[in-house]
Amino acid sequence: MQCDGKKRRSSCPVSFILDRLGDKWSLLIVRDLMFRGMQTYGDFLNSGDGIATNVLADRLKCLEAEGIIEKHRDPDNRRRYLYSLTGKGLDLTPVLLEMIRWGARYDADTGTPALLLERLENDREGLIAAVRAGMKL
Amino acid sequence: MQCDGKKRRSSCPVSFILDRLGDKWSLLIVRDLMFRGMQTYGDFLNSGDGIATNVLADRLKCLEAEGIIEKHRDPDNRRRYLYSLTGKGLDLTPVLLEMIRWGARYDADTGTPALLLERLENDREGLIAAVRAGMKL
Repeated sequence: MQCDGKKRRSSCPVSFILDRLGDKWSLLIVRDLMFRGMQTYGDFLNSGDGIATNVLADRLKCLEAEGIIEKHRDPDNRRRYLYSLTGKGLDLTPVLLEMIRWGARYDADTGTPALLLERLENDREGLIAAVRAGMKL
Repeated sequence: MQCDGKKRRSSCPVSFILDRLGDKWSLLIVRDLMFRGMQTYGDFLNSGDGIATNVLADRLKCLEAEGIIEKHRDPDNRRRYLYSLTGKGLDLTPVLLEMIRWGARYDADTGTPALLLERLENDREGLIAAVRAGMKL
């Protein structure tokens, strides 16, 4: 993927989102930001999925170009950037939560906390709001 | 992607779903089956996104191996297969609908019908049930 979100194939909204996020690495970065409190290049690189450094750099650039994430210099270490989700990125919360629900349902070895799944069933809107407000899993 | 769903990196449910569906073509095939009434290899090949025939064959094989789609011989043309979503595949409906919502929100040129978006806002559960029951967009 080379930031190909601009190359338009159709007016389909599923195609639209997949042109922007349709590779697993982009969505894993969004997950790390959304649910795991990760903020730095080093965090993403070491988050356990084995992303290669050149792929990570490319995906961060694309996600920033799409306005899904933004970066600011770390006030405590001016040589480092801190990444965060924009409003557009936070609006992906329901997509990620539905992915979690499906993954947990069909993965016998899921690591998803039972309490999270319970809240997703019983208080989906509350959970979305809590994640948007910064709740980590 | 080479049906790599079995290679496990973590117990994360997002990683689980992305190992199975984390390339845009797989999800576009699911979309064509779920919302567009497409059933045959030729349907997917000509659905407008420009998938290459070898990629399509590979993705269909992977989706079938994962139990997300199934195929049966067309009773009207025994040389042809008809594809459909399994229960596991239909359980992706909320994921796709949330993708549609996000895509429609951020795409100025979206082709998403306004009535669909309205129902997604006001009667999400009813819409999910209708899509599962075979409603096409």
